[in-house]
Amino acid sequence: FPHDGVLQQDVEDAMEYSLLAGGKRLRGVLVLAFHARCGGRWENALPYACAIEMIHAYSLIHDDLPCMDNDLLRRGKPTCHIQFDEATALLAGDALLTRAFQIVAEDTAVSPEIKCSILAQMANCSGSRGMIGGQVIDIMNEGKEISMEVLEQLHRLKTGALIRCAIGMGCLSADAPAAVVKTADEYGELLGLTFQIVDDILDVTSTTQILGKPIGSDSQNSKTTYVTLLGIEGATAKVSDLLEKSKMLLVGTSLDSPFLVEIATRMANRKN
Amino acid sequence: FPHDGVLQQDVEDAMEYSLLAGGKRLRGVLVLAFHARCGGRWENALPYACAIEMIHAYSLIHDDLPCMDNDLLRRGKPTCHIQFDEATALLAGDALLTRAFQIVAEDTAVSPEIKCSILAQMANCSGSRGMIGGQVIDIMNEGKEISMEVLEQLHRLKTGALIRCAIGMGCLSADAPAAVVKTADEYGELLGLTFQIVDDILDVTSTTQILGKPIGSDSQNSKTTYVTLLGIEGATAKVSDLLEKSKMLLVGTSLDSPFLVEIATRMANRKN
Repeated sequence: FPHDGVLQQDVEDAMEYSLLAGGKRLRGVLVLAFHARCGGRWENALPYACAIEMIHAYSLIHDDLPCMDNDLLRRGKPTCHIQFDEATALLAGDALLTRAFQIVAEDTAVSPEIKCSILAQMANCSGSRGMIGGQVIDIMNEGKEISMEVLEQLHRLKTGALIRCAIGMGCLSADAPAAVVKTADEYGELLGLTFQIVDDILDVTSTTQILGKPIGSDSQNSKTTYVTLLGIEGATAKVSDLLEKSKMLLVGTSLDSPFLVEIATRMANRKN
Repeated sequence: FPHDGVLQQDVEDAMEYSLLAGGKRLRGVLVLAFHARCGGRWENALPYACAIEMIHAYSLIHDDLPCMDNDLLRRGKPTCHIQFDEATALLAGDALLTRAFQIVAEDTAVSPEIKCSILAQMANCSGSRGMIGGQVIDIMNEGKEISMEVLEQLHRLKTGALIRCAIGMGCLSADAPAAVVKTADEYGELLGLTFQIVDDILDVTSTTQILGKPIGSDSQNSKTTYVTLLGIEGATAKVSDLLEKSKMLLVGTSLDSPFLVEIATRMANRKN
């Protein structure tokens, strides 16, 4: 279908607005870093990095909608449904998810076999048994106290799945051996957990200006977090512990590199 | 990710509810019919038929949401967000779209090359320049009078794209030659147009009980339709004309079969 510049402009504007609204680009960077570390040229992994950032952007747009978290601010800017409207935001999210699969399916640098593995992994990690499953657990337990076990499962799915997916996409697109993919995935699991614990800490200790979104939203929504279960000190100690584990995991493997250590370190020490 | 039966049950229940809520299964039938007509075994096309029905179901769930058409009834049953809640319906739609890509990516009967073509086509037809683009045009023009040209573009994208996609999936998964794919696509274009004109006619002439959804919704929403532009008689004549064209198109091609003529005929004469 040819692009009709006039008629569908709105939804593509909304897609671009949310996709280019800034952010750390953690998932995209992970795709490129692991692709390069596994012997590929990082330029070849750009479509995969864009695809995972599109899935991330779609998940944020839908997560911010009134029927979900009803958030007005994201990365210091109005959320998509505030800047546009709810219907446009809904469709922009749908279209970003769709485009992510399209970009990978149409890429010419990677073999069709590998692309199908990557597409299956993208769908698995972002679907009802991955990221969406995590969002469901999150919604169902709002205002309830949950156990550490449920909290970990929630975040393993809601944020961990996509971070691990990004790492897997980087490795697979470079045709990495299974053992490397496995180590990379373990690194991703630690990174995802670190990411979430720091998120919970910052929601208590940061400011809206630094964070780019309202602080204190967890306690306002009566959410169980790593901070409510472990306290600030316990959560901070867990972050240090995870960082050590990440570094140890890489030692002696082909993935041991200053850049991957740096990513883990920055994730542990991030301020926004 | 293993399935956690307890925690994510809600969203999978909602997916199943909407996917199995009945309907004509037109798109799924088209996949199977064209796959078989192109020399494949219809059983091999079942994953593709399920995938397109999942995309269709997702589009209906999101289309029915309060921020879109705000419909309460679909196929004689409460819409997904009425039966469950808005958040669950939103996520169930997202998950159905995601699962559609997963099913195709994981299929083992068709080559990875062809699967990537099919996945690209699915994304193209359902994305911002396909079905979603049509929904955007629809929303933007609610309550406005639009020209026949815009109306045709709207429906070419909103309903036509997915019908043509189904036919393309059937042909491609059977590795049909390009000339056959082209004829099949033309048949799909006529079928999609017929489908929509009949939809517009039934919204004026049917009853809620027969249609399974409220009638008169187009005039209530001040929508421009084929009936408002052509009148009932003009629209009915156009349907007859399209049916003749569909039959003529198939004559002398490898696609000429009683079953495909029957589908076109039923589509022209359908009552719900």
